[in-house]
Amino acid sequence: MNDTAQKITVEKAQTSKIDQVDFDNLSFGSVFTDHMLVCDYKNGAWETPKIIPYQPITLEPSSKIFHYGQSIFEGMKAYKDAAGDTWLFRPFDNHKRFNISAKRMSIPEIPEEYFIEGLKTLLRLEKDWIPQSEGSSLYIRPFMFASGKGFHASPADEYKFMICLAPSGAYFSGKVKVLIEQTYSRSANGGVGYAKAGGNYAGQFYPTQLAVKKGYNQVIWTDDNTHEYIEEAGAMNIFVRIKDTLITGPTSDRILDGITRKSIIEIAKDEGIPVEVRKITVTEVVDAAKNGSLKEMFGAGTAAVVSPIAAFGYNDTDYDLPELPNSYARRMKERIIDIQYNKAEDIFGWRHKV
Amino acid sequence: MNDTAQKITVEKAQTSKIDQVDFDNLSFGSVFTDHMLVCDYKNGAWETPKIIPYQPITLEPSSKIFHYGQSIFEGMKAYKDAAGDTWLFRPFDNHKRFNISAKRMSIPEIPEEYFIEGLKTLLRLEKDWIPQSEGSSLYIRPFMFASGKGFHASPADEYKFMICLAPSGAYFSGKVKVLIEQTYSRSANGGVGYAKAGGNYAGQFYPTQLAVKKGYNQVIWTDDNTHEYIEEAGAMNIFVRIKDTLITGPTSDRILDGITRKSIIEIAKDEGIPVEVRKITVTEVVDAAKNGSLKEMFGAGTAAVVSPIAAFGYNDTDYDLPELPNSYARRMKERIIDIQYNKAEDIFGWRHKV
Repeated sequence: MNDTAQKITVEKAQTSKIDQVDFDNLSFGSVFTDHMLVCDYKNGAWETPKIIPYQPITLEPSSKIFHYGQSIFEGMKAYKDAAGDTWLFRPFDNHKRFNISAKRMSIPEIPEEYFIEGLKTLLRLEKDWIPQSEGSSLYIRPFMFASGKGFHASPADEYKFMICLAPSGAYFSGKVKVLIEQTYSRSANGGVGYAKAGGNYAGQFYPTQLAVKKGYNQVIWTDDNTHEYIEEAGAMNIFVRIKDTLITGPTSDRILDGITRKSIIEIAKDEGIPVEVRKITVTEVVDAAKNGSLKEMFGAGTAAVVSPIAAFGYNDTDYDLPELPNSYARRMKERIIDIQYNKAEDIFGWRHKV
Repeated sequence: MNDTAQKITVEKAQTSKIDQVDFDNLSFGSVFTDHMLVCDYKNGAWETPKIIPYQPITLEPSSKIFHYGQSIFEGMKAYKDAAGDTWLFRPFDNHKRFNISAKRMSIPEIPEEYFIEGLKTLLRLEKDWIPQSEGSSLYIRPFMFASGKGFHASPADEYKFMICLAPSGAYFSGKVKVLIEQTYSRSANGGVGYAKAGGNYAGQFYPTQLAVKKGYNQVIWTDDNTHEYIEEAGAMNIFVRIKDTLITGPTSDRILDGITRKSIIEIAKDEGIPVEVRKITVTEVVDAAKNGSLKEMFGAGTAAVVSPIAAFGYNDTDYDLPELPNSYARRMKERIIDIQYNKAEDIFGWRHKV
């Protein structure tokens, strides 16, 4: 236990809700554990994090979170192995990206030890909440928002950093059908698309609902200028397999630097799969679908890990992607999950013991 | 009093804070009146609005406002005339735009009578809070956000609509110096720039802070693709006067349909000022500044009304705009304020009695 971990105060909940939870039928992110971490930024500095019973947040109506969308978050998971040990997957990358998001949204950066040691202290307390059933996991939600007051459209002077935990089932249930978007956009050049900023998600809801009405689960975003380049799927980065080559778009100021995405690139390289990080045009994907060289498409993200795409829609036509017996999607998912759950060797050094 | 107004319940504050307020030294949006309006969306419907004492909001940590930026707002003002009557300026336009923003952010639309009658009931109760000193006003902040729970990135099932009031001084103090932005962007084609969505504002803070460090007050946003077209200033629409013609950019899915902006267009037409609504290039403005045909630039918005721009920066060069004796900016501001405060005839039908 280091200095920071020693300083973190823990106020325990008087009773636990754990007996009320049906761990065999978990939805995604709708049940929360007994405790949470809270850390306040006041007078120009972060105070020491505290762990307290899970409880409501009380804020002034003029708190800037309600008005100016100054908020960011991360998505992570905790895994329990057969021996009962708890693991995180590349948590320092989440912390790093959290601060990249913070900087872009003019939110003060959170020190690494507050984020990592705070999370580990919370996880040790809540270890019984980590599901061990197949497909379930303990979803971790670090988030940070403007609690400071005032209607002036400028950065707040007070912030809250929090971590909540939610034992969760699968993010998607069933096959994922996506629509390649031709009207709406997720992000601008020089905008905030690379940040995990709250507003990036709300802006996707309406176009996604339109797609859902047409029978799709998610939208694949394209660039806002030509709608010709495939970007990401909002909650996932996108991979395309043409013949035997795995392709994903480069990260940019419009595309989130996904941790599952970069893990897949490294695993593919390790397994000798040809992998290209380059711009992908919609035309190229449609042509490949037509001539049969498009073998797979899948999404990659913390919540869904790897999510095979069963079909995509474009220009009012649906293109089916039949399931392959030995798909890259399944190979990648198994390899990542085996590392996450300490079932396989971790040559990359991604696993981190809690 | 109509049916809705009769249904609105009012719980009065036991004591008033009004004696603690220095009405001669008000900053912008940092002091709040004794009451606020709250209206909850639950089980697929808006409940009847309530007026209650101004008080903190209590929310679950998983409320979607903290995670996915599902929030919108409006900015309005209440004006008191010499006879003590209270007036609003084009309030139905604010309501209409509020619902346009709501739709884009997948937030249920609020009925007109809840917005208008709710606001009027609140204003009648708080009429003593409306400042009558020059340059001060009662700023009105209607806002709406996702209070529903859960970490799934999808629209919430519960929302809160609220109105708070803040007696306020000037938004800008002193001359406004702006920077024409060449790197960062405010909005995307097909994005949410036309909505008064929270995230649109937080995304501007970092580039604005960079501009402030260089000595500017605000950024003038340009299109994200070429940075060659002038769009808006984030909290204001932009007008340019070249020779005697007043020019402003057209509204689009990237630019807010400002109520002060459209009022100025109508006033200019009424006064016989040549006015053009068309795309403005940065090159055109810089050239006009160089050859002396650029007479004025000003911002237009509810908070600042009309804000004359004293200088703009572009490509590391500052272009000064000396104050004109009979500027359009002053003419427009006086004409609008005279209508707002019931000092002049309102041929447009913009004034609305509370």
